[in-house]
Amino acid sequence: MRLRVLIAPSGFKESLDADEVADCVASGVRRAVPDAMIVKAPVPDGGEGFARALVGTVGGTLHDVTVTGPVGEPVEAYFGLLAADPADDGPAVTTAVLEMASAAGLRHVPRDRRDPLATTTYGVGELLLAALDAGARRILLGCGDSGTNDGGAGMAQALGVRLRDPEGVELGRGGGELARLAAVDVSGLDPRLAEVELEVACNWDNVLTGPSGVARVFGPQKGADEATVARLEEALERYAEVIARDLGVDVATVPGSGASGGLGAGASALLGATLHPRFDVITRYLDFDALLERVDLVLTAEGAIDRQSARGKVPAEVARHAGARDIPVVALTGTVGEGVQAALDAGLDAYASILTRPQSLDEALAEVRESLTSSAEQTMRLLLVGRRLAWQEGEA
Amino acid sequence: MRLRVLIAPSGFKESLDADEVADCVASGVRRAVPDAMIVKAPVPDGGEGFARALVGTVGGTLHDVTVTGPVGEPVEAYFGLLAADPADDGPAVTTAVLEMASAAGLRHVPRDRRDPLATTTYGVGELLLAALDAGARRILLGCGDSGTNDGGAGMAQALGVRLRDPEGVELGRGGGELARLAAVDVSGLDPRLAEVELEVACNWDNVLTGPSGVARVFGPQKGADEATVARLEEALERYAEVIARDLGVDVATVPGSGASGGLGAGASALLGATLHPRFDVITRYLDFDALLERVDLVLTAEGAIDRQSARGKVPAEVARHAGARDIPVVALTGTVGEGVQAALDAGLDAYASILTRPQSLDEALAEVRESLTSSAEQTMRLLLVGRRLAWQEGEA
Repeated sequence: MRLRVLIAPSGFKESLDADEVADCVASGVRRAVPDAMIVKAPVPDGGEGFARALVGTVGGTLHDVTVTGPVGEPVEAYFGLLAADPADDGPAVTTAVLEMASAAGLRHVPRDRRDPLATTTYGVGELLLAALDAGARRILLGCGDSGTNDGGAGMAQALGVRLRDPEGVELGRGGGELARLAAVDVSGLDPRLAEVELEVACNWDNVLTGPSGVARVFGPQKGADEATVARLEEALERYAEVIARDLGVDVATVPGSGASGGLGAGASALLGATLHPRFDVITRYLDFDALLERVDLVLTAEGAIDRQSARGKVPAEVARHAGARDIPVVALTGTVGEGVQAALDAGLDAYASILTRPQSLDEALAEVRESLTSSAEQTMRLLLVGRRLAWQEGEA
Repeated sequence: MRLRVLIAPSGFKESLDADEVADCVASGVRRAVPDAMIVKAPVPDGGEGFARALVGTVGGTLHDVTVTGPVGEPVEAYFGLLAADPADDGPAVTTAVLEMASAAGLRHVPRDRRDPLATTTYGVGELLLAALDAGARRILLGCGDSGTNDGGAGMAQALGVRLRDPEGVELGRGGGELARLAAVDVSGLDPRLAEVELEVACNWDNVLTGPSGVARVFGPQKGADEATVARLEEALERYAEVIARDLGVDVATVPGSGASGGLGAGASALLGATLHPRFDVITRYLDFDALLERVDLVLTAEGAIDRQSARGKVPAEVARHAGARDIPVVALTGTVGEGVQAALDAGLDAYASILTRPQSLDEALAEVRESLTSSAEQTMRLLLVGRRLAWQEGEA
């Protein structure tokens, strides 16, 4: 019987996208087991390339849209329409997949304009409008790699939400403006959103405000100095207060509310979106459990496996799904970190290092494709040895 | 059925002895398979610790002997007497195991006295005498880690061989003296040697003279500058010429003749020893094939696995023996070098990297015990996954 292998890796930070990782692993598997039946399901993380990856695995079409970028200049964004609707067994529903980063990602913010008080998610709202115009009735919005910190305020404004200052004047763009927020009015919201299931794939650890809030945790990497972080935190606290008062929703410390500079909070409170731990919803859209029904083994991969891997990272999530079906899961990784035992406890059967010799991170990154491919090959060879052992026992 | 694992690693250069490697691997195996039956057979390489390791695996006793060190000062050397004689199924024969390095190793040569023209293997001869005095009728002499370059001349002199200059005067000690060699007389050789089977475990690639001769290849690491290398080469050529003329034996480029600064040549031509590729004879003394009869799997290890591994290094040798019995062999290694395919072609089923993250060699060495243990654990976990796959197939 041909061995059936599901390859479900995440991307390797700063080196390979999830689909590139999957290609390398597949090559390695074929070197060791030429007749293996391989199913590739790279698991995107919600950020850059998320919609493209989902369309790649599930099937569908990509659509370019010009939107307002995070610093106000136009950027080319895109959304995907899925061919099938794996999340639903009922009548087909037009499903769109979007990543906020394509409209408001950090890569759209020139280094000399990295001011999180000013950058806006307005273009994300425009991208959502384009998906609605295309007939989407279900939308999955991926968070991650954002260049903004406006709590999704710009996105909401593009969709008709009014954010007013004490004089009743509409706020300008950027997180800094929220310090002057006096009232929220959702009566002008695009009515189509009420008919749409809008889901947001969030990093579940990100919250809007407080010591673990997005201003403090992510502001600096988006260009905020200490004073700016404090101003941003104050603005987002004001945003949460007014939302709580006017809409009766507390988003300040809800899990995922801080995703993409607080876009999770705005999507949830102002657009009626539901927030989801990203890999929960992504594996659902990938129809991961159905993929598992047809395989004997799962190979996953991540740049580093450590204590964090047990919560909300790809290998542990993959292990959780596969473990529920008693399908073995092996992870390939470049760094085995502290607390790796947590990943094993989460259901990972084993991990293998992709490194081939003592070397610096830069050296390792330079040859990551070949070392990933080789380690997949050797991992499969080890599994074949294990299979031989079982046969020997059978004979004994 | 309990899994039976033979652990047969070499040492890791500059970090762990073979028996330390075996201990780490055994710990890792037990973490994954607590009830595994483990047999440890660390494979020494002939150099430092060789006799101790053989006695450790086969059983026996260690005996200290004070001998003349390589720079003329006394050193504490030792030999082992094996409890059993695994090399023979006939009547028990007292078998001694020695390493030349215990009497004339580089570690006995102070850095400021590293002059390969002067250092001597005289103490190795004294060590052999002590083994003869203890009743040895079979002797295995390990080469490697030598601090000498005298072609084994000093060793032969200690055992009664006469090396004379043109005036008929006995030569002094050290490889430089051999330039003045005029005649070899073995009539005074200790007569007990004629009754003894003397085997030498050699690196088979080492030859006495010529472009790949010991003076050129190993002289520099023993302290020789360019001029000294040339003088040594000339002296060893003279040594080979006189031996050829007086004894009718050509040792100049015989495989193993260059082992331990040419000690292989002297042992062979002057003492009647037989030279052996080191792992051929070591695996025989370890009774390796008998060990293999009782196991399901072999784990081996070496600091680096590369093109060289296919010839005369532990993993390939272990794979050769195990492969002949169709027992799978997996190697753990810290460096996967160029040409690793040669090791796989030699019969290795798979290898696994012990590294856990990008790091320098020094960092890797500092945590080699834990990374070796962990990689053994993960390797066993991968084998268990392979075993599960076979069971699933059996059920299908």
